[in-house]
Amino acid sequence: MSTEMVTSQNEKAFALLKSDAEKIRKLIEVQMENLTMPQCPLYEEVLDTQMFGLSREIDFAIRLELVEEEKGKQLLVELERKLAALHEASLRK
Amino acid sequence: MSTEMVTSQNEKAFALLKSDAEKIRKLIEVQMENLTMPQCPLYEEVLDTQMFGLSREIDFAIRLELVEEEKGKQLLVELERKLAALHEASLRK
Repeated sequence: MSTEMVTSQNEKAFALLKSDAEKIRKLIEVQMENLTMPQCPLYEEVLDTQMFGLSREIDFAIRLELVEEEKGKQLLVELERKLAALHEASLRK
Repeated sequence: MSTEMVTSQNEKAFALLKSDAEKIRKLIEVQMENLTMPQCPLYEEVLDTQMFGLSREIDFAIRLELVEEEKGKQLLVELERKLAALHEASLRK
C-alpha cells in the first residue's frame, strides 16, 4: 500500500474516533445541564455503555493497525478527563 | 490502493468482527450453562453491553468502508439468532 493511502485511511479512522468521543462528551454535557442529579444510576449506565462502545471501536482500530495503541488509549484518557471536569462543574452548581 | 491490498484489509476487518461476535456467543453460552436464571438482570445487562460494543465496532468498520453495510448488519442478526436459540434451549432444560 502506498504511504499516502495508508496515511489517509489511518487519518480517517482517527478522525472518526475523535468525533465519536466528542459526541459522548456532548451527550454528557447536555445530560449534566438538564439533570439535577449526576449521581443518577441511569446517567452512570448511559456513560458506562457509551465509554464501552468507544473503547471497542478504538480497540478494533488498534488491532487493524489503523491507529497506534498509545494514541488510541490517549483518546479515552482525554475523554475521561473532560467528563470528570464536567462532573466536577455540575457538583459546584 | 491496489485491489489485493484493499481486499486483505477488508478481510482482516471482517474476520475480527466475526471473531468478536463468536466471543460474545461463547460468553453467553458459558453463562447459560452456569446460571439457572437466564432472566437474571445482570445477564441481560452483560448481553446488552456486549451487543452494543459489537454494533459500535461494526458501524465503525462500515463508516471506514472496510465492511459492506449489508454484511455488517447480517453479522449482528446472525448473532442475535444464535443467542435466541441458546436462550430457548436453556428454557427447555
